Amino acid sequence: MKNLFDLADHRITDGRNFSLKKHDTGSKNDVDKDELKKSVENDAEQIGKLQEKLYAQDRHSLLLIFQAMDAGGKDSCIERVLQGVNPQGCSVTSFKSPSTEELDHDFLWRHAKAAPAKGMIGVHNRSHYEEVLVVKVHPEYLLGQHIPGINAVKDADAEFWDGRYTSIRHFEEHLARQGTTILKFHLHMGRAAQKERFLERIEDPQKNWKFSMGDVKERAHWDAYMDAYEAAISATATPQAPWYVVPSDDQWVSRAIVCRAVVETLQAMDPRIPKLGDKAAAELPVAKAALLAE
Amino acid sequence: MKNLFDLADHRITDGRNFSLKKHDTGSKNDVDKDELKKSVENDAEQIGKLQEKLYAQDRHSLLLIFQAMDAGGKDSCIERVLQGVNPQGCSVTSFKSPSTEELDHDFLWRHAKAAPAKGMIGVHNRSHYEEVLVVKVHPEYLLGQHIPGINAVKDADAEFWDGRYTSIRHFEEHLARQGTTILKFHLHMGRAAQKERFLERIEDPQKNWKFSMGDVKERAHWDAYMDAYEAAISATATPQAPWYVVPSDDQWVSRAIVCRAVVETLQAMDPRIPKLGDKAAAELPVAKAALLAE
Repeated sequence: MKNLFDLADHRITDGRNFSLKKHDTGSKNDVDKDELKKSVENDAEQIGKLQEKLYAQDRHSLLLIFQAMDAGGKDSCIERVLQGVNPQGCSVTSFKSPSTEELDHDFLWRHAKAAPAKGMIGVHNRSHYEEVLVVKVHPEYLLGQHIPGINAVKDADAEFWDGRYTSIRHFEEHLARQGTTILKFHLHMGRAAQKERFLERIEDPQKNWKFSMGDVKERAHWDAYMDAYEAAISATATPQAPWYVVPSDDQWVSRAIVCRAVVETLQAMDPRIPKLGDKAAAELPVAKAALLAE
Repeated sequence: MKNLFDLADHRITDGRNFSLKKHDTGSKNDVDKDELKKSVENDAEQIGKLQEKLYAQDRHSLLLIFQAMDAGGKDSCIERVLQGVNPQGCSVTSFKSPSTEELDHDFLWRHAKAAPAKGMIGVHNRSHYEEVLVVKVHPEYLLGQHIPGINAVKDADAEFWDGRYTSIRHFEEHLARQGTTILKFHLHMGRAAQKERFLERIEDPQKNWKFSMGDVKERAHWDAYMDAYEAAISATATPQAPWYVVPSDDQWVSRAIVCRAVVETLQAMDPRIPKLGDKAAAELPVAKAALLAE
């Protein structure tokens, strides 16, 4: 089961020379769907067990960041990753259009607020990366952010974007230094697969609610998005906060890879239920005797 | 009036070779108290006017950080700085002992949440610097922060503190990059002046409420605090986020210097009430005509 994929093929810890095109959106190997589902089931169970220890230990946290083009499969992937986890031990934040209050703060503000507490798995469905993805593709959004020096689209030059990448890198370094392990997933889907999923949303009445005309219009910017993803991953892939570029034309493939990455990461974090100190341990028989004597 | 002090004597923008001992807690010049009060009054009025423009412009923000030993005069200094400011245009956050929720997050979490919105003056009465001041003097506090690798006081080595300084520097750099101007004030009071103020709090029934036995006990750690201040200022004084080491044995001297620094900073920020765009300007006579025709 462990050898369905080699996670190293998908993990980017050093963004220099990163090329998104070199990463397939389909999977190379023909893997049996049942085997994939079984892998996801097993891993989800493992994640639940490891999370329990993470929670009891109350020292480390795990932050999972999900980015993808529309219909890339983020929601269902998150559902699978967390299916075995006690909801009290995880928090999922979906970042939609920022509020006026959020726009009035620095661009990391709402994301820093949502950072997971110790012992928790935090999942960010979209993230601060939108600030260098959708906002880079549509720099006119910057004009609503009241940023000094940004009075026209042309003011957002390379130096401006480099500043954002630096802020993001430093923010993630800080979280890592405090004991947060960070995994960033780009669910990498091809343009043809997106078309198919949009058509399903149109044709299947059960899926109509997911359909948005806006999403279809965004397809026109596909190449600009790919450039923005490549630049963002290049600038922010580090050993402390690696990116996983996950082939996502087949959703069971992407779910299986993501679950594997989460399990292996949690195993490496090796959370342990804390041992009682000598004093507390000595109190146990005293407490027991007192209870029994009641 | 402008020449009561030379702010450059107190401003640290480069921490290398910084020595706290070289900064007097008393003021060199004998300045007339009335003149000091007049300076504070004038400056407070200026701050109010400049803040109005900052608010209307809605682009930049100003973050004022106040640190001092107990009875150093932070509260009354903040009161003076803000006396002419519309409370809607400023927010003061006093950081006391962290809550369980706060301890369960990274050490910058509660401070990042309190960063001022655009157009605002944010005042932090104590700040993230407590994490490298009181916590450095009492490293046993770290044991309640659930930090990976910190299981005993001795685990907090130089590398650990360097990590905190780096996180602080990066956090402030990020805020500066987003348009926040940061001033950090250390109200630098001598040990003898503190003793006098504590005695006043004991002897004056009107001031009894301010007295705390804990504060008096903290005096025993005076030298350790001075070392921690010196190290923190050395590591975090930058052109984007300068420290002001303000002589504070005389409270009117410190108030006057702080007010001066805030006025000069706001003047340099040069906030302007935004000009209407051509389109909006063209609408004004239309709106006027419509209103008059009602």
